[in-house]
Amino acid sequence: MANIDMTNTDPYRPVDETARDMARDLITEATYGAMAVLCPDTALPSVSRIALATDDHGQPVTLISTLADHTRALKANPTCALLIGEPGSTGDPLTHPRLTLHANAQFVIRGTDEHDALRIRYLSLRPKAKLYVDFADFGFVTFAVSEAVLNGGFGKAWRLASTDIWPDQRTT
Amino acid sequence: MANIDMTNTDPYRPVDETARDMARDLITEATYGAMAVLCPDTALPSVSRIALATDDHGQPVTLISTLADHTRALKANPTCALLIGEPGSTGDPLTHPRLTLHANAQFVIRGTDEHDALRIRYLSLRPKAKLYVDFADFGFVTFAVSEAVLNGGFGKAWRLASTDIWPDQRTT
Repeated sequence: MANIDMTNTDPYRPVDETARDMARDLITEATYGAMAVLCPDTALPSVSRIALATDDHGQPVTLISTLADHTRALKANPTCALLIGEPGSTGDPLTHPRLTLHANAQFVIRGTDEHDALRIRYLSLRPKAKLYVDFADFGFVTFAVSEAVLNGGFGKAWRLASTDIWPDQRTT
Repeated sequence: MANIDMTNTDPYRPVDETARDMARDLITEATYGAMAVLCPDTALPSVSRIALATDDHGQPVTLISTLADHTRALKANPTCALLIGEPGSTGDPLTHPRLTLHANAQFVIRGTDEHDALRIRYLSLRPKAKLYVDFADFGFVTFAVSEAVLNGGFGKAWRLASTDIWPDQRTT
């Protein structure tokens, strides 16, 4: 049947430089995102907003409180997903590019060189965080991304490997 | 020890009318949100953007394509979570109120009275959806909310039952 039905075709395009650049730009520009985790008691999904920046490798990092349910969830199971790329207040939000990152969360131990370098970088990118960065319950979490799905708007989707986005990184 | 450490206190406030109203307002005003699902093959969390409106009861509804990974995930396991309440382009995104809804997704069968009523309402709220609402691969999904977590900004969090938000509804 010749009709408008495209439901049975693979919706993903071959990865190209446009997709790689768009993914990197979304990560670099993100100041926050939605993080999906598994609830520790039920293994059911939850989702909450977190602040975002990048580390020296351009990989995502957040600064979160142990008070938050999502932090307890990540400590029980570090597997998570991030949605980044927030629409502006105008236009159709579903035509705005967004990126889903499948990742493992890694808690950064306070007092380590990694922590101190990240603290300097994070405060340079997010100066308002100096109000709480040194609170006892706050800590940095980095995200080791395994794969990504980029949605550039209706009909424009790509699956990317971590090495598509960070070609110089080892595969995590 | 008298210090700034508040890490061991319950971060949730008693539910009040302010929280109930804020939750209802966020749901009513949401045009999109982040939906967390379980990947059908791995049971790991994923998260993606979906369009949102409300049904006649003020409960959330989306219009999604079977082409999308999140639709396949919901068909395999309807348990999901929604994050709604999107910051504007200015100000600190973490001070903007947001709401996490824990829910079960319910696919609305085309050709039923429920579908036809929902189609009319959805198009009245989201007129641009007429471009794809009748595509064979698109369908409505409603969300039966079991509980909610409202975050009104730093230090202002509430846990709400479904009946706090929709007092006239049966508990789902």
